[in-house]
Amino acid sequence: MEIAVLPHVSPVPLHKAYLLLNHGPVTLVSSHSAGENNLMAAAWVMPLDFEPPKIAIVIDKNTRTRALIEKSGKFGINIPGRDQIKLIKLAGGISALASPEKWLALGCESLQGKQNETPLIEGCVAWLECEVIPEPHHQAMYDLFVAKVAFAWADCRQFRDERWLFDDASRRTIHYVAGGQFFETGLSIDN
Amino acid sequence: MEIAVLPHVSPVPLHKAYLLLNHGPVTLVSSHSAGENNLMAAAWVMPLDFEPPKIAIVIDKNTRTRALIEKSGKFGINIPGRDQIKLIKLAGGISALASPEKWLALGCESLQGKQNETPLIEGCVAWLECEVIPEPHHQAMYDLFVAKVAFAWADCRQFRDERWLFDDASRRTIHYVAGGQFFETGLSIDN
Repeated sequence: MEIAVLPHVSPVPLHKAYLLLNHGPVTLVSSHSAGENNLMAAAWVMPLDFEPPKIAIVIDKNTRTRALIEKSGKFGINIPGRDQIKLIKLAGGISALASPEKWLALGCESLQGKQNETPLIEGCVAWLECEVIPEPHHQAMYDLFVAKVAFAWADCRQFRDERWLFDDASRRTIHYVAGGQFFETGLSIDN
Repeated sequence: MEIAVLPHVSPVPLHKAYLLLNHGPVTLVSSHSAGENNLMAAAWVMPLDFEPPKIAIVIDKNTRTRALIEKSGKFGINIPGRDQIKLIKLAGGISALASPEKWLALGCESLQGKQNETPLIEGCVAWLECEVIPEPHHQAMYDLFVAKVAFAWADCRQFRDERWLFDDASRRTIHYVAGGQFFETGLSIDN
């Protein structure tokens, strides 16, 4: 299924794509190369620029995702909702290096973005399709990747008119600490 | 006042300092050079490594903070609580370039860390004392700084035994989107 045809999904203007990551949610990073899909959980990701939109993300050398991204130069950032906590824990708990069947074990439905082969994860609240800007020193030294955001999408029930809408608590974004400690995105602060 | 002597503040072991930023809270960046203090709000900050602990942070060229940090090579990351929302909005809303009296206007009490001259902000829930690792290309190209965490501290009423404790809602950390949209860190997810 193409993400662009889903009735509840809207493209996010590229100069507003940073809004999807600004509040620091945990993400799922999807990747693809030569017929192989993968997904990892990532909290170390942040906006880097408004327009053209860029992001910075840490992708450890000891992950299969790193190998796939180095081959394809592309990845997806999927922002899961509260109701996807099990998927986040699975994606963060299984290594595709130790368990090559990880993608199948996760059992997630994928959506097709505009970057044809990188899967996007169905049921998330927002998505960023990213292209690596090669920076070999930082990649080697710090596992730090800089990427351009080529396309961005959001579930318009949770993100609309440049604002997050978390009326449905089951669809709030999530913040990860470590050791299984997660928090929901909480109440809006109006004063 | 030295932060180390405050009865409610404990040092955070350096290899656990990433826990203070992992969930993506908004921060206040303090800086000092040649008698001048400054403070800016920053959401684009993330952990970069566990041990030795490093962080990555975006500091725009068009800020006074950037000039101070380039001179001193040091800065503080102060993590404010819910009850400091006014300070966050002030720090994010006033430019020290346009208003050289910004630091006085903010009216915050400062604490002395181990990096003698960089002020830390009283009343925050955690603090990281950082030293820039010079990376001229990334600083110039992306406004992206890499820094070593030299010391870390937390209010042990909000962070203890490697976990955040947000029983007191007024002391929860905060997540910033944009345009005045802030969220509290919400409920812990236990399933």
